[in-house]
Amino acid sequence: MSDEIRLAVAGLGTVGAGVVDLLDRNGGPIAARAGRRLSVAAVCARDRAKDRGVDLAGADWHDDPVAMAGAGGHDIFVELIGGAGGPAKAAVEAALAAGKHVVTANKALIAEHGAALAAQADAAGVALAFEAGVAGGIPIVKAMREGLAGNRIGRVVGILNGTCNYILTDMRHSGRRFEEVLTEAQDLGYAEADPRFDVDGIDAAHKLAILTSLAFGVAVDFAGVSIAGIRKVTPVDIAFAEELDYRIKLLGIGALTDSGIEQCVEPCMVRRDSPLGAVDGVYNAVTVQADAAEDTTYEGRGAGAGPTASAVVADIVDIARGRVLPAFGIPAGALEPLQRADVEARRGAFYVRLIVRDRPGVMADIAAALRDERVSLENVFQRGRAPDDAVPVVLTTHEGGEAALKRALVRIGGLETVLEEPCLIRIEDS
Amino acid sequence: MSDEIRLAVAGLGTVGAGVVDLLDRNGGPIAARAGRRLSVAAVCARDRAKDRGVDLAGADWHDDPVAMAGAGGHDIFVELIGGAGGPAKAAVEAALAAGKHVVTANKALIAEHGAALAAQADAAGVALAFEAGVAGGIPIVKAMREGLAGNRIGRVVGILNGTCNYILTDMRHSGRRFEEVLTEAQDLGYAEADPRFDVDGIDAAHKLAILTSLAFGVAVDFAGVSIAGIRKVTPVDIAFAEELDYRIKLLGIGALTDSGIEQCVEPCMVRRDSPLGAVDGVYNAVTVQADAAEDTTYEGRGAGAGPTASAVVADIVDIARGRVLPAFGIPAGALEPLQRADVEARRGAFYVRLIVRDRPGVMADIAAALRDERVSLENVFQRGRAPDDAVPVVLTTHEGGEAALKRALVRIGGLETVLEEPCLIRIEDS
Repeated sequence: MSDEIRLAVAGLGTVGAGVVDLLDRNGGPIAARAGRRLSVAAVCARDRAKDRGVDLAGADWHDDPVAMAGAGGHDIFVELIGGAGGPAKAAVEAALAAGKHVVTANKALIAEHGAALAAQADAAGVALAFEAGVAGGIPIVKAMREGLAGNRIGRVVGILNGTCNYILTDMRHSGRRFEEVLTEAQDLGYAEADPRFDVDGIDAAHKLAILTSLAFGVAVDFAGVSIAGIRKVTPVDIAFAEELDYRIKLLGIGALTDSGIEQCVEPCMVRRDSPLGAVDGVYNAVTVQADAAEDTTYEGRGAGAGPTASAVVADIVDIARGRVLPAFGIPAGALEPLQRADVEARRGAFYVRLIVRDRPGVMADIAAALRDERVSLENVFQRGRAPDDAVPVVLTTHEGGEAALKRALVRIGGLETVLEEPCLIRIEDS
Repeated sequence: MSDEIRLAVAGLGTVGAGVVDLLDRNGGPIAARAGRRLSVAAVCARDRAKDRGVDLAGADWHDDPVAMAGAGGHDIFVELIGGAGGPAKAAVEAALAAGKHVVTANKALIAEHGAALAAQADAAGVALAFEAGVAGGIPIVKAMREGLAGNRIGRVVGILNGTCNYILTDMRHSGRRFEEVLTEAQDLGYAEADPRFDVDGIDAAHKLAILTSLAFGVAVDFAGVSIAGIRKVTPVDIAFAEELDYRIKLLGIGALTDSGIEQCVEPCMVRRDSPLGAVDGVYNAVTVQADAAEDTTYEGRGAGAGPTASAVVADIVDIARGRVLPAFGIPAGALEPLQRADVEARRGAFYVRLIVRDRPGVMADIAAALRDERVSLENVFQRGRAPDDAVPVVLTTHEGGEAALKRALVRIGGLETVLEEPCLIRIEDS
């Protein structure tokens, strides 16, 4: 084994510069843990002249990441370009084809092409490592792939997008509406100018698809994730959640059910005093339910240059130490195709909030619709103010079929006295 | 690499039987993750006849763990006997001397002899793995040793003893006194008949010493841990903590300070809404403060057959995969001797609770003693009921020198109007 391991870093944005900085700043302890010296042998970025606050004098500059990936002179290709396809994918494929280890922070790439890339890595006998792709500085990939290797996992549930959690936390504290908080978060740099990736749940779904694959030993299936974002969460629902001792969080849930594997990203109510309920602001957290270890929860910053660089360097150190293993913990060829759970068979407990005209008979109509679909209610709250006012009605259900509840809500939504589309939020108590 | 890895398991108590059961029950997925089949080739326990609910027909029985450790026929020696010395230590040494990998759940052994054993393992080129020794099913050793390998760690803080956390949680919920809750916990099996190891902080200190070594790359120094248990925590203090939005937890704290490394186990106040403040019952949790990843927190069950077996099997799978690395993340020879922080230089914010006779001038005497030691107060609560009653006085201080505060408390404790020894609890806000 050579006493030096050479890196080619593609992409020198916040994360790329953060990785180079961290390798420099903590070079001594990192080398001790890696058992050898790490050096940045080559870099690739658009603008050579830009000051990134890091010393790149010793590195070869490349303009084309794909050419750099396949060239000699490095042992590990570090992909920090981003994007599910394009140059990131081409460069990772080129690196694997050239027998280089790959470390990436690219959740979209792994979520969409993880199984094929893992197979390519296995065939080449190299690592494909993506700790930085999920939940930033939290070593959750390592925990699931190695730390829980003795377990059968039944469920993985996570707060996987810091922007959404920041917005929901602020809405709770301030009582303000989603749009208002989003605008401020954009001004403060906590949300992107184009926030769709975050607030519509795509980013969380990328991460969930990876966690699901790790949890159940199945090929990553991003297309199978049912996705809803946080745009429809209102201050009214956040206030009711508080009253019921819940918090609304955008959760990614991967679960083994009788009919297959369920993957969803949606706003859910979690108990305020549960490990996930207590996670506020830009933090991420993941709870893994396993048969031997039982519930373990992992919490930390889900994004940012430092946390992401921490995860990238951890992967690099693993490879430098010779700790190379299949990307998803078992050989890519052994990953089963993900059998999607039957949507019609989905079960759960739910919060339902209606806005109704406060008239005699409203509750009777609502109750009849629920009874006809055999929906079992746990709580009902109605606070009348004055006859004919628009007032909220809140119901919580016992665990039951989601499809039946949705059918009842279609009927309820059609009632003349029901003024808005019913709001339905899953209660995640397990 | 052989397609099978053979285990010799010493100790078939709850954990030992749990490991054998887990290897059997989850044999398929474990073999897929390990890349080879695992078999229990030999076992050692006192009573061969006892029914442990697991099938040991294929294993060689030994009476002497030391002889078994050094014998042929196995690749990994799994030490689940327990105890810092005696047969556990002798057997681990014999296994390492015979070039066997060692997996152990024995926190006392690693806390007291970890550095020497790690050196022996390094010399033999084998693993010494002890994930199960700290925080049960939470893969915290792996997280610190590998997941945070890019970081400099500044502080590690943990709830490391489930029995203490269970007792403190119950005291908060019920308002009962320590002794009463302990007795009930013993009846329920949550506390040992001899509870000293747990409630006096020794068990937590063993785990803390290991975490400190991992955090700072120093030789484990159990003797250097300052230890206080939970016997002196009263319902009064728990109620005041609640009022101040804190929770009282027995914390292990390892911290890098200007004068060296500080290690202590003591009851502390943590903010109720902090990751550790929200951890109740038998759960353990550890927060690691690192320069790149920032704060990450790991939570789960800290004990029990399943969680501990999960950690043991994770270590076995690592070794089966060929992922062998130095026990504390860097070669044992590179572990620096732990330079203990100067006790006189310790700083912190504190909660002080006095029981005083409610008379004119009491507060003036107390305030004068604090002023003379330059202790800066944040809050003072005194609730008089009737003149001459015994009433509590609660003070919280700003961050300052602990030694000066203690000197002031000696003087305050000597006042005629102060009726009990002052109670001092660290406030862990950082």
